[in-house]
Amino acid sequence: MSEYKLPSRSEDFSEWYNQLVLRAELADYAPVRGCMIVRPYGWALWENIQQALDRRFKATGHVNAAFPLLIPQSFLEKEQSHVEGFSPELAVVTVGGGKSLEEPLVVRPTSETIIGHAYAKWIKSYRDLPVLINQWNSVVRWELRTKLFLRTLEFFWQEGHTAHATYEEAEIETRQMLDIYTDFAVNEAAIPVIPGRKSESERFAGANETYSIEAMMGDGKALQAGTSHNLGQNFAKAFDIRYLDKTGELRYCWTTSWGLSTRFIGAIIMVHGDDKGLVLPPRLAPIQVVIVPIFKSDEEKATVMETARRVRAEFVAADIRVKIDERDGVTPGFKFNDWEMRGVPLRVEIGPKDVANGTVALARRDKPGKEGKSFVKQNSLIDAVNETLSSVQESLYQRALAFRNANTHDAQDYAQFKTVVEKGFALSYWCGKRECEAQIKEETKATTRCIPLEQIGEEGCCIRCGQPAKERIVFAKAY
Amino acid sequence: MSEYKLPSRSEDFSEWYNQLVLRAELADYAPVRGCMIVRPYGWALWENIQQALDRRFKATGHVNAAFPLLIPQSFLEKEQSHVEGFSPELAVVTVGGGKSLEEPLVVRPTSETIIGHAYAKWIKSYRDLPVLINQWNSVVRWELRTKLFLRTLEFFWQEGHTAHATYEEAEIETRQMLDIYTDFAVNEAAIPVIPGRKSESERFAGANETYSIEAMMGDGKALQAGTSHNLGQNFAKAFDIRYLDKTGELRYCWTTSWGLSTRFIGAIIMVHGDDKGLVLPPRLAPIQVVIVPIFKSDEEKATVMETARRVRAEFVAADIRVKIDERDGVTPGFKFNDWEMRGVPLRVEIGPKDVANGTVALARRDKPGKEGKSFVKQNSLIDAVNETLSSVQESLYQRALAFRNANTHDAQDYAQFKTVVEKGFALSYWCGKRECEAQIKEETKATTRCIPLEQIGEEGCCIRCGQPAKERIVFAKAY
Repeated sequence: MSEYKLPSRSEDFSEWYNQLVLRAELADYAPVRGCMIVRPYGWALWENIQQALDRRFKATGHVNAAFPLLIPQSFLEKEQSHVEGFSPELAVVTVGGGKSLEEPLVVRPTSETIIGHAYAKWIKSYRDLPVLINQWNSVVRWELRTKLFLRTLEFFWQEGHTAHATYEEAEIETRQMLDIYTDFAVNEAAIPVIPGRKSESERFAGANETYSIEAMMGDGKALQAGTSHNLGQNFAKAFDIRYLDKTGELRYCWTTSWGLSTRFIGAIIMVHGDDKGLVLPPRLAPIQVVIVPIFKSDEEKATVMETARRVRAEFVAADIRVKIDERDGVTPGFKFNDWEMRGVPLRVEIGPKDVANGTVALARRDKPGKEGKSFVKQNSLIDAVNETLSSVQESLYQRALAFRNANTHDAQDYAQFKTVVEKGFALSYWCGKRECEAQIKEETKATTRCIPLEQIGEEGCCIRCGQPAKERIVFAKAY
Repeated sequence: MSEYKLPSRSEDFSEWYNQLVLRAELADYAPVRGCMIVRPYGWALWENIQQALDRRFKATGHVNAAFPLLIPQSFLEKEQSHVEGFSPELAVVTVGGGKSLEEPLVVRPTSETIIGHAYAKWIKSYRDLPVLINQWNSVVRWELRTKLFLRTLEFFWQEGHTAHATYEEAEIETRQMLDIYTDFAVNEAAIPVIPGRKSESERFAGANETYSIEAMMGDGKALQAGTSHNLGQNFAKAFDIRYLDKTGELRYCWTTSWGLSTRFIGAIIMVHGDDKGLVLPPRLAPIQVVIVPIFKSDEEKATVMETARRVRAEFVAADIRVKIDERDGVTPGFKFNDWEMRGVPLRVEIGPKDVANGTVALARRDKPGKEGKSFVKQNSLIDAVNETLSSVQESLYQRALAFRNANTHDAQDYAQFKTVVEKGFALSYWCGKRECEAQIKEETKATTRCIPLEQIGEEGCCIRCGQPAKERIVFAKAY
């Protein structure tokens, strides 16, 4: 059993995280430095995230497509700030089919350029607009300091790319996608997030405006969990994406892009996990209920397994994602620990007494010991499980929200600010100047996360320089 | 309208295909030579193919995962015939983050090597077996002669990789996956296929045995539409994939791999398409029914659209994939052609008279003109459409099967053989010698496609050399 014990979350958050990812079999290190293998359990979680997002994308009129992995290097140079942002991070193919290539090809770090090239070809008139395309793929960025899910050379994501006739439509789209990410984080992943606007220095390379959702991890640090960019006409001008308007005039389009990645799995781990391992929100959990049969003799095994299989069939019929742990040679206690490590929201225990009494024991992953345990009649089990899954989903959200609220402060002065950002968010007025932002970063290691869309409507004084400030911004140390 | 006319399928099959892919907006050429953009309509078709396969994979115990895109070049060299097969086709990353890499990285052409490396790490005992993992991704092979969907530098596919304790289990898995591909082709894509064993010279680089499904295209040529490989212990030995058996002895695993790619979309086009464009099997069609409203005045438009929207809602409720073509400024005739080009199986026309009579006109894509048209009461429309969709699915299969049968011959002698393979399949005895296979290829351009699993149980004489032969094999020119 001792091999199952994780480092303590409160004592060594970073090592707790690394060990959890490996032991819950979410991901593994690849033979190439900084690359990751997403193992089946981690990928099943990602598939559920994909479905929850894809449903929302399609309901708002988006379609999926696939653009090539390889991009001519010259494409990246067409948009000035884009190339400055991405050129230090590129993986470059210089040899193909045994020969040196005339023009090197970049493994996509993001696809604004190659999609811009295609849109320029496809879009002719206002009738072709808007174009609302998303793609699910992986991208490569040559990161130096990597951590599984949070920052890897190759990561998996979706990238939406849209083109519109007007600035207003592009802005509405950018904000709509931010809303979708917020809704997904809150209602599927049980993670409270702050949707807001990035400062100029934190914007995506090539964007006029970047919006993000920011979440607080279990150590009080921030994680940017999704971004949505209003690209203005920057890429439209670089790639000549134009349309004939109703009057016959040729105009540049307005474009957007938005993405959410496997990084989000890191957020789920760091928001909900505990010393026993992963804790998954029921709506995204690959397995929502694990059934552990308990028996000693072969005779007990026969009756227990019969009930376990019947119960399993009822779960399947009720669209509850279920697994029976039928492994021989390991104890029920080992199985309990194993599924707790993997974060399965509910455990159903069935022993000979339960068979005799027509009951099962139901244990919640989010509440340890007796507090989370109840005994339920088999004939009302589906209702009980559905209710308990909803209750777990809601509790996880409320717990994360309470933690964030407890660690978010409106610092009264810069001294207090410095203390606050050591272990949480400071929601403070900022004058908007790059110098203040840079000084704060140097002095505290906290960066501006986002200017929350929701403001209290009052003006204040910059936490660093004391000059008048119109809005509050979230400062925090960040992943 | 003339711009919609395709080259004649019978006169110029190749150009008909190229034009159809572009005009039905399935795919487009990318700025990098030989690469492809899969456009939203093509990708929606691929998503339906993915779902139909993924359902079958999961029902047989497989799980999905994601292995890295970049593979150390040295990995490919560990299995001798694998490196010989793939090294001429590699795309190589030599620069990362602005620096030359110490070891070049290959963009995966297939993932046996990197997955073998992971399996060696994960598999310890017989309890860990079998490992049944699939991944959906894209791979890159530096092809010189390319054609959209059929052969591109980057293509999209699934690749399954499994590890087993015994040869027998690996062989059962290999054959099971071939059966799944066959079932998918026949029952989802309405494409008759011949499942069989590849000759030694046509095997996958590194396999002990390769099985494939072979389909006949509309020009009589063959297309390999899916493959399943029994890799023996070749990769297990190259990557040291071993397990402790029940007696405590260390043994090498037996592995398999199997894949089906976006090439299959090429098969759907070339089997079912006609001079008017694409013809999609209803089970895979992104849009199963298109509703075209017909009206002249605004008053007519109001009543027609009301009925169209009500009918649309009924289709949605019945899980039928439907679209109303509401475009202004184009005629109903233009819309008919447009959706015929895109291969939508059924068209529902609603005009003012239909509204008055409580009817609609229902037109089948697979039967032109009056033959495929009927008038249906609105109150029994869902049943009529469901029946007609089933009928279209079945007709497409029967038509393709009849075509294949008419163009498959058991040649009596080599002279007849030469004529037969000009425009179809020759099902002939072959002695099994590489020389005969090579001579036939040189003399007729026909290659061995597969030795059908179904044999008539008699022996014969090799079509080329006249020596005794145990089995018949399919010879054909191939894509």
